[in-house]
Amino acid sequence: MPTSSSDIGRVRVAVDAMGGDFAPANVIRGSIDALAADREGLEILLVGPADRLRQEIPAGEGGRELPLTIVGASEVITMKDSATAALKQKKDSTIAVGLRLQTDHRADAFVSAGNTGAVMSASTLILGRIVGVARPTIGAFFPSESGVCLLVDAGANVDCKPRHLLEFGIMGSIYTSAMFGIGKPAVGLLNVGEEESKGTEAVVEAHALLSASGLNFIGNVEGRDILQGRAHVVVCDGFTGNVLLKFGESIPAFFKGRISGYVADKPLKKLLMVPALGTFRSAMKSLDYEEYGGVPLLGVKGVSIIGHGKSTPKAVMNMILKAKEMVEKNINGLIEQAMVPA
Amino acid sequence: MPTSSSDIGRVRVAVDAMGGDFAPANVIRGSIDALAADREGLEILLVGPADRLRQEIPAGEGGRELPLTIVGASEVITMKDSATAALKQKKDSTIAVGLRLQTDHRADAFVSAGNTGAVMSASTLILGRIVGVARPTIGAFFPSESGVCLLVDAGANVDCKPRHLLEFGIMGSIYTSAMFGIGKPAVGLLNVGEEESKGTEAVVEAHALLSASGLNFIGNVEGRDILQGRAHVVVCDGFTGNVLLKFGESIPAFFKGRISGYVADKPLKKLLMVPALGTFRSAMKSLDYEEYGGVPLLGVKGVSIIGHGKSTPKAVMNMILKAKEMVEKNINGLIEQAMVPA
Repeated sequence: MPTSSSDIGRVRVAVDAMGGDFAPANVIRGSIDALAADREGLEILLVGPADRLRQEIPAGEGGRELPLTIVGASEVITMKDSATAALKQKKDSTIAVGLRLQTDHRADAFVSAGNTGAVMSASTLILGRIVGVARPTIGAFFPSESGVCLLVDAGANVDCKPRHLLEFGIMGSIYTSAMFGIGKPAVGLLNVGEEESKGTEAVVEAHALLSASGLNFIGNVEGRDILQGRAHVVVCDGFTGNVLLKFGESIPAFFKGRISGYVADKPLKKLLMVPALGTFRSAMKSLDYEEYGGVPLLGVKGVSIIGHGKSTPKAVMNMILKAKEMVEKNINGLIEQAMVPA
Repeated sequence: MPTSSSDIGRVRVAVDAMGGDFAPANVIRGSIDALAADREGLEILLVGPADRLRQEIPAGEGGRELPLTIVGASEVITMKDSATAALKQKKDSTIAVGLRLQTDHRADAFVSAGNTGAVMSASTLILGRIVGVARPTIGAFFPSESGVCLLVDAGANVDCKPRHLLEFGIMGSIYTSAMFGIGKPAVGLLNVGEEESKGTEAVVEAHALLSASGLNFIGNVEGRDILQGRAHVVVCDGFTGNVLLKFGESIPAFFKGRISGYVADKPLKKLLMVPALGTFRSAMKSLDYEEYGGVPLLGVKGVSIIGHGKSTPKAVMNMILKAKEMVEKNINGLIEQAMVPA
């Protein structure tokens, strides 16, 4: 079996082997693919039931020589578990063990396609918050006509005060700037109209805070502006963000269903559709979570990326590579510098 | 010119001739088309600058014999006007004059593709609220795998108390039942998860109120459930609803852009797309506002339908026909019966 490789210079990513609907198979596959994609700079700590993982890791493909270590964790927090209850009861869960590797200085990052609520809570509890951050946040990626748009918060905080929205803007701007190489990301505040008097009280106050923040704040943006790409970062409360994220994810399946419905009893139409399907799929792909790998939890003292429950091997691989990039680009150091304690 | 036709039995719909980006041309065209579609039961009162309208109504097509009357109104509230300020300053606006026709018992309904905020405010001010309704609401239509879904509130009320969310559920259920012939519409509460403990305080309380309401309440639904068609009516605050509505409207253009982008430099791919475009357009059409005509304002003592600023003649026609149907189906009478004063 592979043993621990602590080569200096490698970024050590702890991976929740049991996270997601297709674990551990997709997680193992995605981990091996990530190591194949980055042969020099990556080390993986696969967290889960050691015996089972040992059996499932393929012997071939250089599996035994890869910088991949199994870290034992006997319990699994399922998708159906209540986050808070599970964290209390399952002390040896893959999520808790995987995150503690960072506080023990054995890993630099953690990724999981498991229970989102549990990963968020455990990350905040175990890693702690960066000084000045009241509310760690998850950002979600939307495609846009100008590339990609980070919607932040995407569900970590359903009730938000103006100060929290400001924090989301600051952290989202830092992440987007560093990860996508955008000098001064355009930050918009999601609202029901462009005028600064629009929206709830919290949003009106957040507008004032963002205006005075030194960010490249472009003012209010509306629902239509996300895909149109008016902003690189769109700030909103986690209720609205979560609803939008899940709505967006449901669009490709909806259109696929519509198109199947239209051509179902029309063999000629069906035939005529065939050559176009590839292009259609490419267009839809931009709304596919798989491409983005996962969503980062920003504001905790460590790196934690949360993946979709249905993560494919490719999605797991992308999550791991993104985690490594977040470490290398020192996102947390930049957030620490930017945050002023409230 | 056509003169007033007050044939007994005809539903009299007042139409804001100057509402929308393509007024009065699209409004006149849509009005004539509505009268052509419903030769027996409809009368239209076209509200706007009389001289201009007289010039623009085509003499042919039986225009002069149609049951279409011009009602003079000298002022226009533009899309850029602040709703409250404009209502104070422009006393003779098409919106105010058109709505007053209902309180004067000269019309049964009003439709406008003009300034949404102004139509909402003026409708509430001029028509008044139904007893027991604290917050009139606008509903928006989303396509769904099981037909259509009414999202309510779609932007009339950004800050909502639990009681308001309950009202939206009651009014949405009545509208959907009567207009789409659904016995007991399934009503869902938009939230970030299925568990009843999820969401903001207001949403948690609304869950309890809806559970006890006698509606066919199916509990919390998530962003993905809208297109998947789990509920006929999805209840949410107007902030979330407005963002979702505008996001949804932006999807067809986004995909069209993507597809054009993919095939731009690939003549063969472009050619292969051609036969599929019709099917593709049909699939996208379901997210097109035009099909639904407009969104009803529910909870006022009268009928008021608000159209999209870019309303085509077809959209205007559909709005008028929907307004007539709302009158005939006595939506307001049903709401009056259902509402218990808070």
